[in-house]
Amino acid sequence: MELNSLLNHTSEWLKGTGPNADIVISSRIRLARNLDKFAFPQRANNKQGEEVLNAIEEKIKKLDYLKGVTIFRLLGMDSVDKQFLVERHLMSLEHAQKSDSKAVAIEEEEVASVMINEEDHIRMQVVQSGFNLFEAWNIANKIDDSLSKELGIAFSPEWGYLTACPTNTGTGMRGSVMLHLPALVMTRQIDRVLAAIAKLSFTTRGLYGEGTQASGNFFQVSNQVSLGHAEEEVIENINGLIRQIIEQENQAREVLLSRNKPVLEDRINRSMGILRSARIISSQETIELLSMVRLGNDMGIIKDIDRRRINELFILTQPAHLQKMDKKKLSSVERDIKRAELIRNKLNLV
Amino acid sequence: MELNSLLNHTSEWLKGTGPNADIVISSRIRLARNLDKFAFPQRANNKQGEEVLNAIEEKIKKLDYLKGVTIFRLLGMDSVDKQFLVERHLMSLEHAQKSDSKAVAIEEEEVASVMINEEDHIRMQVVQSGFNLFEAWNIANKIDDSLSKELGIAFSPEWGYLTACPTNTGTGMRGSVMLHLPALVMTRQIDRVLAAIAKLSFTTRGLYGEGTQASGNFFQVSNQVSLGHAEEEVIENINGLIRQIIEQENQAREVLLSRNKPVLEDRINRSMGILRSARIISSQETIELLSMVRLGNDMGIIKDIDRRRINELFILTQPAHLQKMDKKKLSSVERDIKRAELIRNKLNLV
Repeated sequence: MELNSLLNHTSEWLKGTGPNADIVISSRIRLARNLDKFAFPQRANNKQGEEVLNAIEEKIKKLDYLKGVTIFRLLGMDSVDKQFLVERHLMSLEHAQKSDSKAVAIEEEEVASVMINEEDHIRMQVVQSGFNLFEAWNIANKIDDSLSKELGIAFSPEWGYLTACPTNTGTGMRGSVMLHLPALVMTRQIDRVLAAIAKLSFTTRGLYGEGTQASGNFFQVSNQVSLGHAEEEVIENINGLIRQIIEQENQAREVLLSRNKPVLEDRINRSMGILRSARIISSQETIELLSMVRLGNDMGIIKDIDRRRINELFILTQPAHLQKMDKKKLSSVERDIKRAELIRNKLNLV
Repeated sequence: MELNSLLNHTSEWLKGTGPNADIVISSRIRLARNLDKFAFPQRANNKQGEEVLNAIEEKIKKLDYLKGVTIFRLLGMDSVDKQFLVERHLMSLEHAQKSDSKAVAIEEEEVASVMINEEDHIRMQVVQSGFNLFEAWNIANKIDDSLSKELGIAFSPEWGYLTACPTNTGTGMRGSVMLHLPALVMTRQIDRVLAAIAKLSFTTRGLYGEGTQASGNFFQVSNQVSLGHAEEEVIENINGLIRQIIEQENQAREVLLSRNKPVLEDRINRSMGILRSARIISSQETIELLSMVRLGNDMGIIKDIDRRRINELFILTQPAHLQKMDKKKLSSVERDIKRAELIRNKLNLV
């Protein structure tokens, strides 16, 4: 698979189906693993890094559970290509910063991917559409099992999986759920909800993980502690919290409808109207307007569009995607024009 | 003609044709006349006021030049009906304040109308689409001639036509041109232009005449002095000024196109997008967005709509028009919803 061929489709998890897909965009399981005979990436020299990369690469190619997997080495990769992979949530911003001995392995439908030599030797992720952490865990667990069989993994009977950062030690697992909470934001309840999440030792992040701001009413909630609990227990804990947030978002949507339906309908339809007609539009405005359109679609206020098309636009309108589609570097102004054109094409087609 | 039947059409001058109709909405000639045997309206008692009203009414009905004229007395007229006539520019806000002995005579296509017992006994106006003051003057002059033959008009060989306010004495004529100057506003040249107009002894007003603010980039320019010049001379003076303003607005439009066409196209298309999708919209926002759409249409940026439809919407979306169409009183919120609905129907039809 060529990197460019990713442009021909969007990730499977954007399909907009699965449990509670009106509020939960996606569920993600990430596992951190390290080889037992090598220093952690930040401590390893170039030679050691290459050895780790070669060893993992070799095994990944043979795995049954990674259908049509391709491994992309970051060394020599164009910066737009790197950003493109970040925008697709296939690798972290941090991973894209340096290139030496780093790679990312991508399964053809982008359900599973593996970052090699990020903070840990192996950072595997499995993403599912909707509220479905257990299914993501099942897939990740199988990949992990067969990979562990082939590679000597750093594991302590007392501490569990050993990781570069102690917060990941134990299961090495992080479960994350990407939530769309426009009604909690509009009814000004979101700060209370986020404070409650923080108190319960969960973290909230923006669309692109650690260090990114929440925007367009999207919030990624994940477990903070990985030590001292079995994976299923951790997932059940997250699920319990997410179920409560979903209930509160649903209640807030009801409140919006019953208190002032015309105002809600106005805001949603104007958002669609602007997206369908703008000639210049920023990434930030796009996310905010698409958030309203998604809400309108979920609540039956906008009917002539499907959820997948909206989900896809969040990714396709990102800077590197626009430049890959246009096959050249674009200035910020040129991107704003191309973005508006793409959105019009996608939304006026229907 | 019933007052309600005015709802079945819009005024002839909204057709959006005539010289320079891309910048000049309409040209209006107003003549102030008084009967020589009666006190001015503000000095007259009820009985005198009624005598004046009856005398003028009787003559107007017989005039050849007022096709299908109907006279509406203001006494007992519903406040929404009065506002409706003001919104159509058929009578002044001032005329609508009091009702006794007041009336307005309306020619069936709304080209000519006569307010009776406003500030003067007779305030006649003739409106033409586009930049066409001389044609308006020709029509007004014929109506005035035949009316003067029938009624004794207050005229002094030294001062000319005598009027309640000395500023109108002389010809009793005011020529007004309604201009749409969005490019001069957007390029921040409008203050300089308005200052120049004021220095030349012309006045600038908003959409609804004396005391109203300019909004949506509309400016009504008219002569301040009525004394000491023949009518044709006054009109030629206004025309000279208007020709200069038209040239400056055209230059400003060229500047907008050449400097930043995408920004202009974005603003115009977004305005249309919002108008086509909003569910709640105020009168002020409507005027501002329609102004952009009119500019877009005039500059060939928006092609699927004709100028008459845009011109009409400025009038049809006014509060009394919405209530007349809906056949009941509407609260401000209800009007904002009805207005959005009407605009969607008119703009999505095309």
